[in-house]
Amino acid sequence: MADNKKMVESITPMDTDFAKWYTDIVKKAELIEYSSVKGCMIIRPYGYAIWELIQKDLDRRFKETGHENVYMPMFIPESLLQKEKDHVEGFAPEVAWVTHGGQEELAERLCVRPTSETLFCEHYANIIQSYRDLPKLYNQWCSVVRWEKTTRPFLRSREFLWQEGHTAHATPEEAIAETERMLNVYADFCKETLCMPVVKGRKTDSDKFAGAEMTYAIEALMHDGKALQAGTSHYFGDGFARAFGITFADKDNKLSYVYQTSWGVTTRLIGGIIMTHGDDNGLVLPPAVAPIQVIIVPIAQHKPGVLEKANEIAEQLKKKFRVKLDDSDNTPGWKFAEYEMKGVPLRLEIGPKDIENNQCVLVRRDNREKYFVPFDNLESQIEEILKVYAENIYNKAYENMQKRTYDCKSIDEIKQVLAEKGEGFIKAMWCGDEACEDSVKEQTGVASRCIPFEQERISDKCVCCGKEAKHLLYWGIAY
Amino acid sequence: MADNKKMVESITPMDTDFAKWYTDIVKKAELIEYSSVKGCMIIRPYGYAIWELIQKDLDRRFKETGHENVYMPMFIPESLLQKEKDHVEGFAPEVAWVTHGGQEELAERLCVRPTSETLFCEHYANIIQSYRDLPKLYNQWCSVVRWEKTTRPFLRSREFLWQEGHTAHATPEEAIAETERMLNVYADFCKETLCMPVVKGRKTDSDKFAGAEMTYAIEALMHDGKALQAGTSHYFGDGFARAFGITFADKDNKLSYVYQTSWGVTTRLIGGIIMTHGDDNGLVLPPAVAPIQVIIVPIAQHKPGVLEKANEIAEQLKKKFRVKLDDSDNTPGWKFAEYEMKGVPLRLEIGPKDIENNQCVLVRRDNREKYFVPFDNLESQIEEILKVYAENIYNKAYENMQKRTYDCKSIDEIKQVLAEKGEGFIKAMWCGDEACEDSVKEQTGVASRCIPFEQERISDKCVCCGKEAKHLLYWGIAY
Repeated sequence: MADNKKMVESITPMDTDFAKWYTDIVKKAELIEYSSVKGCMIIRPYGYAIWELIQKDLDRRFKETGHENVYMPMFIPESLLQKEKDHVEGFAPEVAWVTHGGQEELAERLCVRPTSETLFCEHYANIIQSYRDLPKLYNQWCSVVRWEKTTRPFLRSREFLWQEGHTAHATPEEAIAETERMLNVYADFCKETLCMPVVKGRKTDSDKFAGAEMTYAIEALMHDGKALQAGTSHYFGDGFARAFGITFADKDNKLSYVYQTSWGVTTRLIGGIIMTHGDDNGLVLPPAVAPIQVIIVPIAQHKPGVLEKANEIAEQLKKKFRVKLDDSDNTPGWKFAEYEMKGVPLRLEIGPKDIENNQCVLVRRDNREKYFVPFDNLESQIEEILKVYAENIYNKAYENMQKRTYDCKSIDEIKQVLAEKGEGFIKAMWCGDEACEDSVKEQTGVASRCIPFEQERISDKCVCCGKEAKHLLYWGIAY
Repeated sequence: MADNKKMVESITPMDTDFAKWYTDIVKKAELIEYSSVKGCMIIRPYGYAIWELIQKDLDRRFKETGHENVYMPMFIPESLLQKEKDHVEGFAPEVAWVTHGGQEELAERLCVRPTSETLFCEHYANIIQSYRDLPKLYNQWCSVVRWEKTTRPFLRSREFLWQEGHTAHATPEEAIAETERMLNVYADFCKETLCMPVVKGRKTDSDKFAGAEMTYAIEALMHDGKALQAGTSHYFGDGFARAFGITFADKDNKLSYVYQTSWGVTTRLIGGIIMTHGDDNGLVLPPAVAPIQVIIVPIAQHKPGVLEKANEIAEQLKKKFRVKLDDSDNTPGWKFAEYEMKGVPLRLEIGPKDIENNQCVLVRRDNREKYFVPFDNLESQIEEILKVYAENIYNKAYENMQKRTYDCKSIDEIKQVLAEKGEGFIKAMWCGDEACEDSVKEQTGVASRCIPFEQERISDKCVCCGKEAKHLLYWGIAY
C-alpha cells in the first residue's frame, strides 16, 4: 500500500463505551468534523447528504399537507423576544447576543434566533387581517443557536440545522388538529423513511415548550436504552396572539385572536439513526436516506473485463439507485470495511468468476446475508432486497424497544428494573400531580418522557403517591 | 365585493420612479415583507418559492460538475477571521459581532459569517494530507451577514441567502480552470434558466474580492441602465493556503500548498429578475423559476360545468406544469391583474363558451398575446408557448442590453452618452493603470464593471491617458 493511503480505523465497541462508539462513528464515517468554535460542528459531505435526503422527504410531506416555505431574519431584537413572558424565560438564558454591527455598538441587542415564534408572530400580526387569510401554514429550513454548556455532535450543539413550522388558525380545534397532524407526519416519516419506531405522546406540563399550552413529542429508544426526543409539535392556544396582537375579522366582522402551533425536527435525527441502527462495524443506514445505496466493489479489478463490466452495471443502476463504484487501488477488504463503516445498505461484488457466471454478489449491511444475482435480474432484486432490509432494521429496532420497555407498579419496581436491566422505557401510572413527577425523578433518576396517545391501564394507582391514577406515563433517561 | 377583500393595488410606473417601481413590486407581488430588524427582510412564500427553484437548478449544475454540499458553523472567531490580512481588512468593518453567550461574556468575540473562506481553510488544513485528497470541491447553501448602511430588498441586505463554493486544488492551472468553469455555470444558468443575458469578465485589481488574486464576475444590465453584479468567482492562488497552512504531500512525498477558489450567487438574483423582465404591470417571471407557470381563471364560474372543467384541466396539467386554479370569488378582472402583478407566464381562461367550443384561451404575460387552444392539444401547446415566451424575454433583455451599450473613445464621449442616453454599459479602452481607472470614475461617475472575456479593440489608446491601451473595459453605474 502507498504511504499516504488511509486505513479503515476500528471503532470502540458499543458495549465497551457507548458514548465513545458514537463519537467514533460520527468522526470515522466522516459525518462531522469539529471546528474551532466550541459546540459548533462542520457537517461533512457524507453527513450533509443524509440531511439533504431527510429534508427532501420531509419537505414533500409538508407541501402535501399544504405548507409553504418562507425565510425569516436570523436576528431577533431583545424587545421582540421579550413580548411573550414564558417564551423569553425559557430562551433568554441560552441565546447568543449580537452587540456590535461593524464598528458601532447597536442601540438594541439582537439575539441569534434560538427559535422563531416571535418573528413569525410579528409577521402574522402584519399580514393577517381577515378570516380569508387563514390558515397560515408556514415552514422554514434554517439554522438556530442555543448556547448549550455541554455539547455532542448532532444530539446537542450550539448551532444546529432544523425546520420550524409555524401556523395560525381561526379556531382552537383547527390548531390542535394541525399540532396532531404534524406529529403524525413526523412519526410516519420516522417509521417509513428512517425505519425508526417512536412513541407518540404529550409532554407533562413541567416539560412543555416555553410558551406552549400543550407539547406533543415523538420519543425513540436508542441502543443503550436512553430515550431520544426526536421531534416536537406545540399548541399555543391564543397566548402568543394576545402578546403580539394577531387578530382577524371573522365573517361577521368581529375581531378574534388566532390560534397557533409550531413544530420542528433537527439534525438530531441523524444522531437518532446512528444510535437506532448502528453496530460495532459502524453506521447502518436506512435505504431512503443513504447517500450511497449500493457500493460496487470490483474483485481482481486489474483482470481484463472486470472494470468495464463494473462500470456498465454502475451506469445501469444509477438510473434507479444512488450508486458508487469504488475502483480505487485500495484492497477489496479495505473497501468492505470502509463502506460498512459508512453504513451503505448493499455491497455489490463483481469479479472474473462472477462475470463468467453472468452474475454478481450482493451483501447486505444489516446482517451480511449474501445473494448471487444474475445480471438480467439485478434491478428488481436490489429493489426487493432494499425493501426487506428496511423492514428488517425497523423490526430489529422495534423489538429492541419492546424488549426494553418495562411495566412498573411501584417506585421499587422502577429501581429494580434500572438495576437489573439497565436503561429503557419505564411505563408507570401517574396521578397527574407535578409533585409526584418530581419525586419519581428524584428517587429513581428517570424523567417523564410523554403521556402516550395509546393509553393502557397497568394499575389503578399512581406509582408514587398511590392515589387514583390519571395517565399512563413513559419514563426514561434522555439524551 | 365583500368588505375584507383585497384590491390589486397599482404600482408606480417605471419611468416615473424606478426605485419606487421596484419596491412596489417586491411588496405587492408578496415577495418580501420588512421585519423589525433593520436591513433584514422576510422572504414570503412566493419569493421563497422562486429561490427554491433557483437553488434546485443551480444545485443540480453544481453536483453535475462534481461538487458536494457541506455545512460550516455560522460563527467565526475573531482570531480566525484575522489570519488572512487582505481578507480581514475587507470584511472586519462590516460584520456583526457576538459578544455574549447566554449570561456570559465570551472570551473571544465571534463574528457572524460574512463569507466562509476562513472556516473552509481551517477545515481543509485538517482534512487535506495527500494529493489523493484533492481536489476538494465543496459548496454550502446558507445565510450570511454584512452590516450594510443602506439596504434594499434582495439587492443589498444585512442578511442574505446565498451559496458559496470553496475548492482546493493541486495546481494553479486546475484552480483557474475551476474559477472559469463556475463562472460559466453561472452565465449559462442566467441565460438558460433566468433568461438574463450577462457579460462575463474579470474585475480590475482595485475591484477584486478581499484576499483574491483574480475575481471573475457576470454583469447584467437592468431596465434603468444600471449594472448588476450577478455572480462572482474568485481565484486565490496559494495565499489562503499559506496563511492557514493547507499543504499536501504529492506523489514524491514533497509538501506543497494547495490553490483555492471560491464562488457565489445570492438572493440578489431575484432582484435581477425583477429589473430585467418586469414591467409596469408587475413581475414577469422566467418559466423555469415561476412558482406558478399557468394560472387558471374560470370565467362565469357559477355557470354549470365551468368549475368542473377547470378542475379537470388543472389536474391534467399539474402532472407537467406548476399550475394553480383560482376559484375564489374575486372577479376575473381582479384575478387577471393579480397574476400579472405576480408575473405568472401564462393565464388560462375557461368559460361556458370555451367549453362549448372544446377549447380554452391562453394569454401570455410578456406581450398579452392570445391563443385559442383545443383541449386535446393543451399540454404540447403550453410547452411550446412557454418555450417561445422564454426566448422572447431573453431576446428583449438582450436587445435592451445591446441598445444601451455604447462605445466611447474619450472621456467627453462618455460624458455625452451619459447626458444624452442615460445610464448603460460604456465600452472603453484602458491602459491598465489604476490611476486612469480612478480618474475616469471621478470625471464621469461610472465605475469599471469588468474586463470582458470577449475583447475587442475599439481604439488603440486608453480613454483617459491616451497611452497604449491594454484592455477593453466595461464601465457603468452599479447597484
